[in-house]
Amino acid sequence: MIILNGGSSSGKSGIVRCLQAVLPDPWLAFGCDSFVDAMPARMQESDGGITFAADGAVSVGPEFRALEAAWTEGVAAMARAGAKVIIDDVFLGGAASQQRWQKALGGLDVLWVGVRCESEVAAGREIARGDRVRGMAAAQADAVHEGVFYDLEVDTTHTESLLCAQAIATYVG
Amino acid sequence: MIILNGGSSSGKSGIVRCLQAVLPDPWLAFGCDSFVDAMPARMQESDGGITFAADGAVSVGPEFRALEAAWTEGVAAMARAGAKVIIDDVFLGGAASQQRWQKALGGLDVLWVGVRCESEVAAGREIARGDRVRGMAAAQADAVHEGVFYDLEVDTTHTESLLCAQAIATYVG
Amino acid sequence: MIILNGGSSSGKSGIVRCLQAVLPDPWLAFGCDSFVDAMPARMQESDGGITFAADGAVSVGPEFRALEAAWTEGVAAMARAGAKVIIDDVFLGGAASQQRWQKALGGLDVLWVGVRCESEVAAGREIARGDRVRGMAAAQADAVHEGVFYDLEVDTTHTESLLCAQAIATYVG
Amino acid sequence: MIILNGGSSSGKSGIVRCLQAVLPDPWLAFGCDSFVDAMPARMQESDGGITFAADGAVSVGPEFRALEAAWTEGVAAMARAGAKVIIDDVFLGGAASQQRWQKALGGLDVLWVGVRCESEVAAGREIARGDRVRGMAAAQADAVHEGVFYDLEVDTTHTESLLCAQAIATYVG
Repeated sequence: MIILNGGSSSGKSGIVRCLQAVLPDPWLAFGCDSFVDAMPARMQESDGGITFAADGAVSVGPEFRALEAAWTEGVAAMARAGAKVIIDDVFLGGAASQQRWQKALGGLDVLWVGVRCESEVAAGREIARGDRVRGMAAAQADAVHEGVFYDLEVDTTHTESLLCAQAIATYVG
Repeated sequence: MIILNGGSSSGKSGIVRCLQAVLPDPWLAFGCDSFVDAMPARMQESDGGITFAADGAVSVGPEFRALEAAWTEGVAAMARAGAKVIIDDVFLGGAASQQRWQKALGGLDVLWVGVRCESEVAAGREIARGDRVRGMAAAQADAVHEGVFYDLEVDTTHTESLLCAQAIATYVG
Repeated sequence: MIILNGGSSSGKSGIVRCLQAVLPDPWLAFGCDSFVDAMPARMQESDGGITFAADGAVSVGPEFRALEAAWTEGVAAMARAGAKVIIDDVFLGGAASQQRWQKALGGLDVLWVGVRCESEVAAGREIARGDRVRGMAAAQADAVHEGVFYDLEVDTTHTESLLCAQAIATYVG
Repeated sequence: MIILNGGSSSGKSGIVRCLQAVLPDPWLAFGCDSFVDAMPARMQESDGGITFAADGAVSVGPEFRALEAAWTEGVAAMARAGAKVIIDDVFLGGAASQQRWQKALGGLDVLWVGVRCESEVAAGREIARGDRVRGMAAAQADAVHEGVFYDLEVDTTHTESLLCAQAIATYVG
């Protein structure tokens, strides 16, 4: 199992698609985006769910956390059932977020990957994408890495997604 | 847990979104579309993965089945961990597909829902969507229900998604 | 040239895709959605642009109107240059919106089509789509038709998109 | 009017969104992607339309060219009606494609921008995007610039979209 953590617009999704392309076995990819898509639309407007403030701040409530915990258990079960799984996540809680994953994944072999991108560059890519609330990239660029340990870190500021993926792939199998 | 089975363009996704809107608790929704999105892109062009023929025929290979089995286990684990989960699937194998789910879900409380739509109407909606291979709707309309049992069947031919969802919701807790 | 007018979630886009499928010549399709996509993202948050209130009300400002006028001229020019063009629009200003099109299209042969859908049904389909602000369908269902004349009206409440498209196609030489 | 020409996955769309963000006036953005979306779906499977071969080769037929000519006239008319317009295109015909635009735009003030990206880097980004036929980036990287003249060239190989957009913006009155 591979878990990538990085701020919004740091380039995680591109790395995931490249990883799926370069790794010889088929890996399933899930992440915070697909998890949010699985929730009822109204959870994106409620205090118990997930809210995106106009300044890019993201906050999550107790209902979100409860569903996320079950989702995390499910992802762990997929891996235990033999699937190779790549997760891309945004550790809004830093080290606490990593501990939540560790608790669920107990016993599974995990490669922890930090995806870094300079705040200013990520903010520019957020504009270029055009589909994200402005400010998320800058707000998350450093905060999501606080207290988190990694087996490997990549930095997309000056390195292409494919090269980052190839670096990660050398650690796998 | 709620499992909806129906052919392509029978209206499953619309019913799922309405169910998420009308059910008071937050339900997570997953399905064959999100599962296929989680696979490497190349699995959609390989014999071991999933192929969409020009006439609308869909076939899946051994690598697809292996990942699907692990994914099914993961979905079951989410439900066991307390999440309320809605699945929309296309039982390409009819009764055999249902048995795969039953085996993985052993012990969980499941509402089985058949989503019907007259073949000709589904084929028209396939054209109106514009993003699906032509012919899938007609090829799957009846075949996916062969030998499958349901707690409840809805028919979108003359009934709106919201009304179908409300009918299903009355069966839930 | 064919211009379809109807409220949000009345089924215009589905009819357009079916029209493109059943009409023997290739027709280009444009509409208010593709026009809004062509504007800078910030126009969707500014008083001069277009705003979507939480209750489904849509309002447009002077900068939006200026760009829209130029866009309308461009669409007219495509038709004069020989392209067959289908437009789907939401006449937020009712008769005034139609007059804006008439002025730009002077001399061109236009088939005016009203796309009706009962307010309650459109509101249900808005939930089933899941990607629109709730309330737009109900707010627009009748208002957009006020004072507008048509060559032909279709009603998607009980009629499939493909059948509506076939009815429209019989009017097209 | 600004016209950007570059191969697939060279970064045109990102630059366009950044241009729309940094330019003080609202600019409308159209391009080959939105034009292809406006065509009937069946044009993507027919010899008269546009075909994407498995090796990344793109070819267009007479019906595509006829619609494109009318579309080009329409874009010119939008600009003449006062809209500021950004076009991103792929000059599959090199100099001949530029001449088609010049003929339609006669008299309009155009800033011609070449968007370069090293073939290998563009091919990597094509994998990271995951939604394009593999091989288009490499096939088009150089060919689309043959015989084309520019007021300005940017290279996304080592320069972010936002910086490219800022460089272009300094040329705009």
